[in-house]
Amino acid sequence: MKRSAFFISDGTGITAEGLGQSLLAQFENIEFNKMTLPYIDCIDKAKETVKTINKTAEADGFKPIIFDTIVNSEIRDEIGQSNGFMIDIFGTFLGPLEQELHSKSCYTVGKSHSITTNSNYERRIDAVNFALDNDDGARTRHYDKADVILVGVSRSGKTPTCLYLALNYGIKAANYPITEEDVEDQKLPTALKAFKHKIFGLTIEPERLAVIRNERKPNSRYASMKQCNHEVEEVEMMYRRERITFMNTTDYSVEEIATRILVATGIERRAK
Amino acid sequence: MKRSAFFISDGTGITAEGLGQSLLAQFENIEFNKMTLPYIDCIDKAKETVKTINKTAEADGFKPIIFDTIVNSEIRDEIGQSNGFMIDIFGTFLGPLEQELHSKSCYTVGKSHSITTNSNYERRIDAVNFALDNDDGARTRHYDKADVILVGVSRSGKTPTCLYLALNYGIKAANYPITEEDVEDQKLPTALKAFKHKIFGLTIEPERLAVIRNERKPNSRYASMKQCNHEVEEVEMMYRRERITFMNTTDYSVEEIATRILVATGIERRAK
Repeated sequence: MKRSAFFISDGTGITAEGLGQSLLAQFENIEFNKMTLPYIDCIDKAKETVKTINKTAEADGFKPIIFDTIVNSEIRDEIGQSNGFMIDIFGTFLGPLEQELHSKSCYTVGKSHSITTNSNYERRIDAVNFALDNDDGARTRHYDKADVILVGVSRSGKTPTCLYLALNYGIKAANYPITEEDVEDQKLPTALKAFKHKIFGLTIEPERLAVIRNERKPNSRYASMKQCNHEVEEVEMMYRRERITFMNTTDYSVEEIATRILVATGIERRAK
Repeated sequence: MKRSAFFISDGTGITAEGLGQSLLAQFENIEFNKMTLPYIDCIDKAKETVKTINKTAEADGFKPIIFDTIVNSEIRDEIGQSNGFMIDIFGTFLGPLEQELHSKSCYTVGKSHSITTNSNYERRIDAVNFALDNDDGARTRHYDKADVILVGVSRSGKTPTCLYLALNYGIKAANYPITEEDVEDQKLPTALKAFKHKIFGLTIEPERLAVIRNERKPNSRYASMKQCNHEVEEVEMMYRRERITFMNTTDYSVEEIATRILVATGIERRAK
C-alpha cells in the first residue's frame, strides 16, 4: 500500500518534517510518498496547497496524511478544508501549553529556525568553521579549544560526525586520523597526548570499512581487506591500552553516533 | 519567569527536541532551561529520569514541561508518574494515525534516526564528502554531478549552507568563491560558465560581512568596510547582469537559507 504524506509549514518545515518522519517510521508496512511544503504563509499559498492535496487524494484513492506546524489559525483552517488527514501539531499542543504556562503563545510565523530567536546560532557557525579548520589532523594547535577530539582510522566516520555536532549543537569537534604509522608505533600520536581527556575513539567493522574505502580508492592497498583488518585491530588495541572510550560506528547513523558521544562524554547538548 | 523543559526519548531525542523547541519558541516571555535525555529505553533509566524531573520541579516551584517520543508505553507510563507536565507526542498521534492507516504501528524504539530505516543515509554521507571535496572552488571538475553550485564573496555563508544541504537532505552542493579578480573582470568565472543553470548566488550586507571577516582576519584590508562594500556591490551587479538568482543571507539562519534555495531552485527535498 502506498500513501502520501505532506509536511506543511509557514517556516522551513523542518519541525513538521522531523515529527512526521518519526511517526511514519512506526508504520513499516506502508510506503509513503513524502512532500515538504515550506513557507505556506498566506491564504493564497494555502489555497494552492489544498489543490495539491486534493489532487493527490484523488490520484491515491486515499487521504494524504498532513503534518503541519502553521501558527496562523486562518491559514491552518484553510489547509483543514482539504481532503487530507490532518495531524495539527501546533493546534493540538499549544492550547494545553498555554494553560500550564499561564501565558499566551505569540503565534509568530517560522519562529523556531529563525536566526533571531536562535541564541546558539553564531556558536553553531563558529563550530562548523572549527570542524573544517581542524579536520583530519590538519591543525592540532587549537585542540585546547575543542570540546571533543574524535580519533579513528581513515573513513571510520569522524568528519561527518564532527560536522553534525557543530551544525546542530555548536559543539567544537576536531578530528585526528590514526594512520598506519601511528598504530605500528603502538602509541598515542604525540599531538594528542596532552588532550587525552577530550579524545573519543571511533571504530568500524573491517568489512564495512573496506567497502567505504573501495568507493574512494578502488582496488588499492588502502582499501584491501587485509589492510582494513590490520588497522582496525591495531587501533582497537590502542584504544584499550590507552583507556580511550570508543564506539563501533558500523550500524549507526551520524545522528546516533553524535548522540552516543554526547552521552558518553557528558558534553552538554546545547539545544538550539 | 524561568521554567524547565525536558526532551526525552528512547532514541536520539532529536524529534522530541525539534518539536519541543518549536513549541517553546512560541512563548517568548518565558525563559526555558532545556535538557535532552536520549536513550531512556528501560524502566530503570525511566525511574532515574523521574527522580531528575521531580528534583527539578521542586527546585523550580513549577512542573517541568516534558516532550517525549518514547514508543514503549510502560516506559512512557513510568515517566508519566513524574511531577512534570507531559506532552506525549507519540501517545497523542499514533492512535489516530493507526485508525486512518488501518495499520498497527510497530512501536519500534528509536526508529526514525537509525541507519537501517534511513534509505537516504548513504546519499547523505556521499553528499557531505562531495561538499567537502568541492568546497571553496577547490575542484571544479565534478560540477556536472552537483545538484547546485553556491557562489558568493568570501564569508557570505556558502560552506555551512552546502554542508547543511548535504547532511540533512543528501543534496550535492558545491561552492565557488567570487574573488576580487572575478568581480573586476565583470564576468562569470570561466569554471562556472557551463553550469550557469545550477548556480545560486548568495549576498550579504557589507556591514555584517565586515564583522564576520574581522573575526577571521582582524584589521585586514580583506575585512575593511571599503573592501566589503566594493565586493558586495560588484557581485550583486554580476548576479543581475548574468541573471543569476540570488538571496541576501544577512537575516537568515542556515536552515532558512537552505530551505529558500530548495524552493527557488525546485530541487527535490528528499526527506530522510
